[in-house]
Amino acid sequence: MALSSDEVNFLIYRYMLESGFQHSAFSFGSESMIAKSSINGESVPPGALITFIQKGLQYIEIESQVNQEDEKLSALR
Amino acid sequence: MALSSDEVNFLIYRYMLESGFQHSAFSFGSESMIAKSSINGESVPPGALITFIQKGLQYIEIESQVNQEDEKLSALR
Amino acid sequence: MALSSDEVNFLIYRYMLESGFQHSAFSFGSESMIAKSSINGESVPPGALITFIQKGLQYIEIESQVNQEDEKLSALR
Amino acid sequence: MALSSDEVNFLIYRYMLESGFQHSAFSFGSESMIAKSSINGESVPPGALITFIQKGLQYIEIESQVNQEDEKLSALR
Repeated sequence: MALSSDEVNFLIYRYMLESGFQHSAFSFGSESMIAKSSINGESVPPGALITFIQKGLQYIEIESQVNQEDEKLSALR
Repeated sequence: MALSSDEVNFLIYRYMLESGFQHSAFSFGSESMIAKSSINGESVPPGALITFIQKGLQYIEIESQVNQEDEKLSALR
Repeated sequence: MALSSDEVNFLIYRYMLESGFQHSAFSFGSESMIAKSSINGESVPPGALITFIQKGLQYIEIESQVNQEDEKLSALR
Repeated sequence: MALSSDEVNFLIYRYMLESGFQHSAFSFGSESMIAKSSINGESVPPGALITFIQKGLQYIEIESQVNQEDEKLSALR
């Protein structure tokens, strides 16, 4: 599962609107041609970008713990 | 572990620069006052925002699978 | 003789490009929908906005001198 | 009498605010560092940019008429 550029851009655009960065949202909407993307904005929950980033962070932490466990196990063998 | 607004904003700013959205990067840099944040840009690897979002997606997929397994197990009991 | 909004906006847009305000030119081009105006850019000489403003200033100065002369003449009568 | 860049920029900035180009005003304010200029905004009347441009146009029309008269007079000699 991968995100398209349009999807990433939409997440960012929405974050800007939600966070009060109205001028940046305008520039980014124009420059990334958000109006021409086929994203259905209603299907994107509020705070989606932050949610994804936070879950990404958790994933990276878990990966790092798993790797440490693996190393400990390798050391035992 | 949580990201601060400054960190989220910096990830977005960097993404814009890396993706050629130079006008948006300018607006967002100004509007989010990126220059006044204390982020050390050199410590942020290229493509960091995309990496976090992709890992977040993976995490959500795994969570969803785990929940499905849990439901199957509950049904067996 | 009067200028339309489209003409004023085009003069400003051109000034921004000529003066190196590229991000502002982008925002203003988008926000004023410059691409949809029917101005033929080639018919607008370089520095047109500055020329108009300077001539406007000269005009105002002359007007003010003429008014002063008028007042002096009125006082003589 | 000449206008400084700061003065020209301030006239444009004010025009954008008065005309509802809020995103462009933000970008231009940042890019031209309007906040660091020493213009006293209160001394600039509403619609100043348009006034200057219109007067400039009038001046150019008068100049052009004067030149035509001069040519006619030269032709008579």
